[in-house]
Amino acid sequence: MTPSSLDELIDALRCLPGVGPKSAQRMAYHLLQRDQRGAGRLARALSHALAVLRHCERCNTFTESEICERCANPRRDASLLCIVEMPADLAMIEQTQSYNGLYYVLMGRLSPLDGVGPRELKLDKLIARASDPAVTEVILATNFTNEGEATAHTIATLLSARGLKVSRLSRGVPVGGELEHTDTGTIAQALVERRSL
Amino acid sequence: MTPSSLDELIDALRCLPGVGPKSAQRMAYHLLQRDQRGAGRLARALSHALAVLRHCERCNTFTESEICERCANPRRDASLLCIVEMPADLAMIEQTQSYNGLYYVLMGRLSPLDGVGPRELKLDKLIARASDPAVTEVILATNFTNEGEATAHTIATLLSARGLKVSRLSRGVPVGGELEHTDTGTIAQALVERRSL
Repeated sequence: MTPSSLDELIDALRCLPGVGPKSAQRMAYHLLQRDQRGAGRLARALSHALAVLRHCERCNTFTESEICERCANPRRDASLLCIVEMPADLAMIEQTQSYNGLYYVLMGRLSPLDGVGPRELKLDKLIARASDPAVTEVILATNFTNEGEATAHTIATLLSARGLKVSRLSRGVPVGGELEHTDTGTIAQALVERRSL
Repeated sequence: MTPSSLDELIDALRCLPGVGPKSAQRMAYHLLQRDQRGAGRLARALSHALAVLRHCERCNTFTESEICERCANPRRDASLLCIVEMPADLAMIEQTQSYNGLYYVLMGRLSPLDGVGPRELKLDKLIARASDPAVTEVILATNFTNEGEATAHTIATLLSARGLKVSRLSRGVPVGGELEHTDTGTIAQALVERRSL
C-alpha cells in the first residue's frame, strides 16, 4: 500500500554507503516530512555534480575542468608526485602545509575481495602520469591499513621496475603519543624502523 | 580547491538525518566514483517523490492521490481509528493482521525541545478526522517513549473532552519475554496494569 514513488525513493536511498532498509525509510520520511527544501536541493546537487564533475587528466581527482587547479598551478613542485587513496587524504596532506608537490588520487585502493584489482584502479593511468620526465620521486601516501599497504606495495613494484624513485610515509608513534596508549604493533614498527640520531 | 559542484553535493547530503560532514563526504565520493547510476536514480526518485507525494486528506500518510487506498477501502472498519506516529508504525500494525480499522498518521510526535508542539503536529486535523460520527473508538498507538507517551496523553485529553472513547495499546512483558531479561520499569508497569483472569 506504500505509494510507488515513496517505495522507489526508499530503494534509491539505499545506494548510499552504510544505508540499509530501515535508515533509508527514516531518511525518506525525514526528507518528505521535515525537509522538502533540503530534498530538492539534494536532487539538484546530485544532477549538477553528475553533469559537470569529471576526473582531472593528470591527478585523477574530481574537477570541473580538464586539468584541476592544483595540477595547473606552476608554483607547485612538479618533481614530487604524492599518491593518495581519496581526495580526503589529499586534503589532509594539504592541511599540513608541508608539501608543495603534485598529487595522484587513486580514487580507491586495491581490494580483491570487493573486486577492485589493478585494472579497476586504472593503475596504467598512474604509471603514465608517473612516467612524466619531470617526476623525480613518487611518495606513496596510501593508508596504513592492510589494503592500503598492499596497494602501496603493488605500486612500488610497478614504478621501481620503471626506474622511478619511490618512497613511503614513515610509520611510528604519533606526534604527542604516549607509549602506554600506543598499540604494540605500532611500537614494534617504530622499533624496527628506528632512526639514527 | 574542491570544485563547487562537489562542495554543494557534500553540503546537500547533510540534510539527511544522522549524516555529518565526514559521512557526507564519503557518500559523495562513493556516488561519484562507484555508483553514478545509483546517484542519477536517487536524483530522479527525489524529484519525482517531491512532485507527486502528498498527505492523505483523511489519514495524513503519504499518498499520490487525494485519499489513500486504505482510507478508500470500504472493507475496513471505519468505527476504529488507530493513531500512530509514522507510516513505519502503521506498517508494523498491518503486519500483525489483527486490526482492520483505519489509521491516522501524526507524521511525528510532540517534542517541545525540537520545536514540535500541537500546532506543528497539526492536531486540529486529527481532531477533525476523529470527530467523524462513524468513529466510535480512537486507539492511541504512539511509541512508549517519553515523547510518544506525552503525545498520547495530550491527544487523549483533547479527544476525551469531545466525548470520544479513547484507548491505548497495553504495556507489559513482551510475548516470549523472560522476566530475568526484562527491564524493571516494564515489570513494574506489568504489575500495576495486571489483568484479572
